[in-house]
Amino acid sequence: MESRRLSDEAVSAACQEGHPVTQDFMMQQTMLRVKDPVRSLDFYTRVLGMTLLQKVDFSAMRFTHYLLGYENKSEIPADIKERTAWTFSRRATIELTHNWGSENIEDLCYHNGNKIPRGFGHIGIAVPDVDAACKLFADRGVTFVKKEDLGKMKDQTFIQDPDGYWIEILSPNSMLSLLSP
Amino acid sequence: MESRRLSDEAVSAACQEGHPVTQDFMMQQTMLRVKDPVRSLDFYTRVLGMTLLQKVDFSAMRFTHYLLGYENKSEIPADIKERTAWTFSRRATIELTHNWGSENIEDLCYHNGNKIPRGFGHIGIAVPDVDAACKLFADRGVTFVKKEDLGKMKDQTFIQDPDGYWIEILSPNSMLSLLSP
Repeated sequence: MESRRLSDEAVSAACQEGHPVTQDFMMQQTMLRVKDPVRSLDFYTRVLGMTLLQKVDFSAMRFTHYLLGYENKSEIPADIKERTAWTFSRRATIELTHNWGSENIEDLCYHNGNKIPRGFGHIGIAVPDVDAACKLFADRGVTFVKKEDLGKMKDQTFIQDPDGYWIEILSPNSMLSLLSP
Repeated sequence: MESRRLSDEAVSAACQEGHPVTQDFMMQQTMLRVKDPVRSLDFYTRVLGMTLLQKVDFSAMRFTHYLLGYENKSEIPADIKERTAWTFSRRATIELTHNWGSENIEDLCYHNGNKIPRGFGHIGIAVPDVDAACKLFADRGVTFVKKEDLGKMKDQTFIQDPDGYWIEILSPNSMLSLLSP
């Protein structure tokens, strides 16, 4: 069978209206397991510029969620109940999961989804200026995904977080150059 | 070595200010590979209520990106250049990647990250009413992640997309009940 793109008609037919119940749904989080929260918190705050919105300890189950996002620190409520409702009503957060002690397991290495078995690919950060962002990342010793590992995405810029998850760095205004003629 | 949570002091020390270059960074996308875009577009639009913002064909490389999000359809620019810049400046989109022909590969099954090798865990959708959302999902034949598969997350609600990726369904106002005493 020939492999090809979906026709525009097939795409239109596949996309349907959501039920009214879905009207106020919101894409709230992307969860990634991390081995060592110290290095991950440093990376997502100091390097990527996110803010830690809240940490939520699940003591009985021995793990912690760290919720991070691009939010104004001054808006974080002081009261824990208000803060929790606020955190989980922010769009586009990253939830880093730390299973306590994982940083001490020498051979533990989380799977970034880009080698077999594939699945999740990456998160993507939109930035005003890809070159300025990449200069900052280089200055801070960030690992770039090598062109030869990028497969079909060689023209794009990807970095890796401390666990090896891929992060696309893109500028909305320059995405047009990636389109097919 | 004892496994335990990071101390509040260690968390504070790990979280640093971002460089001014990061000021307008934005969490733009989460990319997931999908086997069959027809069933995925149906799921993300009809079941989850997202809107297809744009499809981007990479003909030479034989794959397509489908960008979806919770946006107002009437705001999508008609002009392709404007639309592209607009799409990639939306926060919190889902980028579904279809490698052409994957739907015809019988034994292809993408990895959801929650069995070994673990990594990516889930995306999370905030909804006004978890019960109403779950009733809709049940009516539409959505697969729920079984309690016994949830490991440490048994009190939370997770569904699966057509490729088996986990999707947490959460209500910001009820998250407080999950906190440790």
